[in-house]
Amino acid sequence: MTAPEVGIGLIGSGFMGRCHANAFNSVAGLFDLPARPRCEMLADATDEIAAAGAKALGFARATSDWQSLVNDPKVDIVAITAPNVFHEAMALAAIAAGKTVYCEKPLSTTAASALKMTEAAEAAGVVTLVGFNFLRNPMIQLAREIIAEGELGEITGFRGRHAENYMCDPDAPHSFRTVPEGGGAVADIGSHIVSMARYLLGPIVATCAVSETIHKSRPVKAGSTEREPVVVDDMTHALLRFETGIVGSIEANWAATGRTMDLSFEVTGTKGAIAFSQERMNELLLTQGSGATAGFTRIEAGPNHPPYGRFCPAAGHHLGFNDLKVIEVAQLISAHMNGDRCGPDFREALEVQKTIEAMQDSSASQAWTSI
Amino acid sequence: MTAPEVGIGLIGSGFMGRCHANAFNSVAGLFDLPARPRCEMLADATDEIAAAGAKALGFARATSDWQSLVNDPKVDIVAITAPNVFHEAMALAAIAAGKTVYCEKPLSTTAASALKMTEAAEAAGVVTLVGFNFLRNPMIQLAREIIAEGELGEITGFRGRHAENYMCDPDAPHSFRTVPEGGGAVADIGSHIVSMARYLLGPIVATCAVSETIHKSRPVKAGSTEREPVVVDDMTHALLRFETGIVGSIEANWAATGRTMDLSFEVTGTKGAIAFSQERMNELLLTQGSGATAGFTRIEAGPNHPPYGRFCPAAGHHLGFNDLKVIEVAQLISAHMNGDRCGPDFREALEVQKTIEAMQDSSASQAWTSI
Amino acid sequence: MTAPEVGIGLIGSGFMGRCHANAFNSVAGLFDLPARPRCEMLADATDEIAAAGAKALGFARATSDWQSLVNDPKVDIVAITAPNVFHEAMALAAIAAGKTVYCEKPLSTTAASALKMTEAAEAAGVVTLVGFNFLRNPMIQLAREIIAEGELGEITGFRGRHAENYMCDPDAPHSFRTVPEGGGAVADIGSHIVSMARYLLGPIVATCAVSETIHKSRPVKAGSTEREPVVVDDMTHALLRFETGIVGSIEANWAATGRTMDLSFEVTGTKGAIAFSQERMNELLLTQGSGATAGFTRIEAGPNHPPYGRFCPAAGHHLGFNDLKVIEVAQLISAHMNGDRCGPDFREALEVQKTIEAMQDSSASQAWTSI
Amino acid sequence: MTAPEVGIGLIGSGFMGRCHANAFNSVAGLFDLPARPRCEMLADATDEIAAAGAKALGFARATSDWQSLVNDPKVDIVAITAPNVFHEAMALAAIAAGKTVYCEKPLSTTAASALKMTEAAEAAGVVTLVGFNFLRNPMIQLAREIIAEGELGEITGFRGRHAENYMCDPDAPHSFRTVPEGGGAVADIGSHIVSMARYLLGPIVATCAVSETIHKSRPVKAGSTEREPVVVDDMTHALLRFETGIVGSIEANWAATGRTMDLSFEVTGTKGAIAFSQERMNELLLTQGSGATAGFTRIEAGPNHPPYGRFCPAAGHHLGFNDLKVIEVAQLISAHMNGDRCGPDFREALEVQKTIEAMQDSSASQAWTSI
Repeated sequence: MTAPEVGIGLIGSGFMGRCHANAFNSVAGLFDLPARPRCEMLADATDEIAAAGAKALGFARATSDWQSLVNDPKVDIVAITAPNVFHEAMALAAIAAGKTVYCEKPLSTTAASALKMTEAAEAAGVVTLVGFNFLRNPMIQLAREIIAEGELGEITGFRGRHAENYMCDPDAPHSFRTVPEGGGAVADIGSHIVSMARYLLGPIVATCAVSETIHKSRPVKAGSTEREPVVVDDMTHALLRFETGIVGSIEANWAATGRTMDLSFEVTGTKGAIAFSQERMNELLLTQGSGATAGFTRIEAGPNHPPYGRFCPAAGHHLGFNDLKVIEVAQLISAHMNGDRCGPDFREALEVQKTIEAMQDSSASQAWTSI
Repeated sequence: MTAPEVGIGLIGSGFMGRCHANAFNSVAGLFDLPARPRCEMLADATDEIAAAGAKALGFARATSDWQSLVNDPKVDIVAITAPNVFHEAMALAAIAAGKTVYCEKPLSTTAASALKMTEAAEAAGVVTLVGFNFLRNPMIQLAREIIAEGELGEITGFRGRHAENYMCDPDAPHSFRTVPEGGGAVADIGSHIVSMARYLLGPIVATCAVSETIHKSRPVKAGSTEREPVVVDDMTHALLRFETGIVGSIEANWAATGRTMDLSFEVTGTKGAIAFSQERMNELLLTQGSGATAGFTRIEAGPNHPPYGRFCPAAGHHLGFNDLKVIEVAQLISAHMNGDRCGPDFREALEVQKTIEAMQDSSASQAWTSI
Repeated sequence: MTAPEVGIGLIGSGFMGRCHANAFNSVAGLFDLPARPRCEMLADATDEIAAAGAKALGFARATSDWQSLVNDPKVDIVAITAPNVFHEAMALAAIAAGKTVYCEKPLSTTAASALKMTEAAEAAGVVTLVGFNFLRNPMIQLAREIIAEGELGEITGFRGRHAENYMCDPDAPHSFRTVPEGGGAVADIGSHIVSMARYLLGPIVATCAVSETIHKSRPVKAGSTEREPVVVDDMTHALLRFETGIVGSIEANWAATGRTMDLSFEVTGTKGAIAFSQERMNELLLTQGSGATAGFTRIEAGPNHPPYGRFCPAAGHHLGFNDLKVIEVAQLISAHMNGDRCGPDFREALEVQKTIEAMQDSSASQAWTSI
Repeated sequence: MTAPEVGIGLIGSGFMGRCHANAFNSVAGLFDLPARPRCEMLADATDEIAAAGAKALGFARATSDWQSLVNDPKVDIVAITAPNVFHEAMALAAIAAGKTVYCEKPLSTTAASALKMTEAAEAAGVVTLVGFNFLRNPMIQLAREIIAEGELGEITGFRGRHAENYMCDPDAPHSFRTVPEGGGAVADIGSHIVSMARYLLGPIVATCAVSETIHKSRPVKAGSTEREPVVVDDMTHALLRFETGIVGSIEANWAATGRTMDLSFEVTGTKGAIAFSQERMNELLLTQGSGATAGFTRIEAGPNHPPYGRFCPAAGHHLGFNDLKVIEVAQLISAHMNGDRCGPDFREALEVQKTIEAMQDSSASQAWTSI
């Protein structure tokens, strides 16, 4: 018997598009899936770009008309890696066509838009998935299990951060991220640590945040001498209150000199604690107990931490960023075939977006804000 | 010519008293001082305790009457390591007697009391010093110089923490720290990270904090089955606004499972960043520049970082906690002889205390609070 | 114009076969290559295994007859991942057929066999490549450039290690690795640190080694109560003398409790030093200069370190083990098209094998041995 | 009842002399001792140096005649920190006078001389102690206990190093260390890692070493343009065979650019492993067991690790180099009062010296050498 195939329609062939394509090309050789992906069609801004992308990334057909892709009968899953402002229209069209929708984060530019997308998807009953791929790390899965199984005792605190340095340069130009619809650092990377906090510890119900625009103006485009003011944040610090009653704090910072991917957290409980940074994504630190030999243990990723073993049969060989996307795609295909939820769907991404907007509101009003 | 001597009167022979005595006994062999300390008199609660302490710690005389110590003509410097509730009375008496006053932190139980002490000392013109000894670390001195000399560019952010685990156990009993006058975790160890933040970046003008009492009751004393409610915090997260306009955040947590001394910070600037944790007190991390070989450099304490060379002529030999106290005492004796300020005096300790009280007020009112 | 294709014939569908297939499937989407690989044929022990492997790994045809694969006109590159004892026959047949040969390490079971393979390949003028994939790490490329450009001054010393824990268990059974032809730890993983040392610092001309068999017997197969003696080493320590005159040492150890992939080294020069461990494969430590801010800098992999940017446009996203194989395959295809040497070819693998055999001889004779 | 006193006679007031004095001044305040040290007399090269040293370091009397110190009836313990070439004469005189002898390492310039000293001390029955102070670290004590109690299972391997950078500069002048009697890097710092290896794992019975003189000549004195050849090593790598049958290796290197105190080791056993570096002297890494949460645990020094609690009642406060000397002196005074052996006595230091000489012989003969 031949395994069925699912047709993939990919919108966008930039960095994230290539990352998706790589995952679709690799996943069948690594995972036992109920169906194998068939790279059916790629859409991009022009016919030329789309054709080149399709050739490079192994897609059978190319188009500059994303709507034809969305409605193509041989496309079963629509993967959206286009700029954020297009997410709503593309996703709604794909939902209307009954397709499974795999959308990059953030889900949309506003919580209101994200809500519309979520309600449409739920009404249509389609499978959705949003690309919070850092959650797919086997070490994060281990962290979640350690917490869920009570290995840390009762959870008492959370401290998190997502700090990178890609906007440190005051002459880095405006982009879709620095306009109000982009939402600034708190939306762009703050969403990762918020999704992580929710994944580990559940809903956040209130926040008090303070945001700062470090570089007050930026060139209108790369190399330009014309500058325009920046109205979004470069850095936000926020206090959090979780539904469980736990309090904590996070920082989002895209002008954090020296930090390339400090998506990090420490979760403290009455019996233990865990710590993690994406800067060392194949390690989780765990401490439990007391006594002369207690301390933080550096757990290294290995076959004991599924689905690491899909990539390598021995510990110490390390996964990379692109492997996380492969794991995500494996779960997407299973969910598509089985009709299951498979992690951060549109509803979850909406909740993240509401949390981010509450932080923005809180910073503006200088007061605690409920979510 | 013989170097003059200064007579030391030490109140208290507990952990901190022994730490002071050790520093007074060692300092002359390590530093070139304008005078050498003479361990003149030790006071403690009873004659027996005082006599035993004096003998063990090398003091010439002992007394159970701290007032006679304070007024003894052969005592030039009064070192106060008694419980916090006695600081005000002892310091005021020493000031009245014209003595230099060296007081353990926190300066007193309230900012109002600390203000009274500060004003008395300033009116009398006596030298004062408060034992925020972590500031004496050569690595902290290096950090401060790096910032002051603009090596990090313009400072853009601060993230700090003081986390320990000594109150993790829900059956750890009440103590002077857990009563309202003790002030809880934010006062006990939060004061260290606040004094550090001020030392590096200047005054804090506003804060918004959230405090949590993790263990709601504790035994009235060790081993007792009788429990009383805890009204102070075990953990506080606080947003900060500095006078310079920088924003940031800190955490104070004495129930941080797995952490023994995570007095840590990261200071970010437009051109570089530094990171430090007291868990590795002989190291400072520094990053500057970009390019293929940029990254955080682990600077190890050595003779390049005064006064490290006083302890050892070669790098890599490491200072310990007690050495920080020796540095503090060396600066105390110089200040006593020269009449200078020498770091965190009563005025500075008062400002720390006001910042802590603002955090407590903010948590109670759930609103930003000015300092 | 359409890019040409190169037909890939893969022998073996175990761990390494899957790793190769994954690389062939991904490489065209990540690299700009002069040709794209076409997964043409897969051979394995039986028709069933081969057919299943071909399906899972995306190969067009399957066979249980590796000789037909080697001679197939549509196969341009023969990738050998079969057990070591078959390498010689397969490679010689592929060379005879004029194919490019891509062979997993070790090249063969003896240096004599490796020499025969090397001479055949050189006589035929075919491109060869041996899978020492750890050399493909962008951080290793950086290390090599730092050394070659004199950034460390004159090189004065080398200290290396490859330590893993996969044979710690005394009840881990015999395998092709534990028989004399397997060569033990020094051959299996010692070859990695030897190839690394040669890649960074050039030929090794003499060695003095001491080997130890920690577990004197092992079960004949998994779960068996019958045990047979072990004659190969579990651990070897070796002194080295390089052609340049530098001396140093290495350890190979496959019973290193707690170590999963400590393929590590420190290279010291008169002006600087570098340190690396595969346990943190996305980091290189570099120190240069002296003074108050000198120390080891943690360089994190990023687009400054080609070909990292092929995988991700931003630093901090990390490569994994499988990505190293993709880099290797990209270089293989370029070399195949251009007829170039592309790193560790058969000649280089022969030199590694001779060095390993000299270590084995040295341990047996308890004397320095020339290579 | 008053505790008795022991009179200390210190020879030398340089770095090590000050380190001794600091320890004698501090120890009574930190440890409960059967007697307290009384700093009785200090000897140095001239009356002026001796008098200044005595004043700074708190000694009652000074002399330029070390023989009068050794024979003074109020001196009970003779502490020798003079250059190595004087150790034999001073120790023999002190032994003849029946004094306890506390001598800095290395014990003497040759094993023959060390043997003479050892036999004299043993014949006289005096207490001796040699200053291998790194062994006094509570983390090393913990390491030794872990090994002795079988926590690592059967020991299978050892890998050690002592690397510093203080002779990196090719213009660092000749000193007592670089002449043949000094013994070079292998004697100066190799002795530390040899003493550590012996302390943890017992006697070493054979070695094969290779030494290298990196800088072939050095100025005859600081700033001189006249240079003389260097005949001692800058770096030695050595294979080891322990009496227990374990094999391993060490490196001694005083020209290790970037390393300030990498006195480090990894001890591997069938059930666990430990790793340590003096660069992080308050930490010991320990791994045991396997499974999803196994890994190296970072144990931080604290009151669980005697005699840490003598210095501080809480973990995380860290000991420094000078504290190790205080521990050593506490054990010296107890041994003096009780007549016990107290760690590395002359006999043990002799064994270290014989091991070092075997390494030197082995490097010269290029052959394995028995000890």
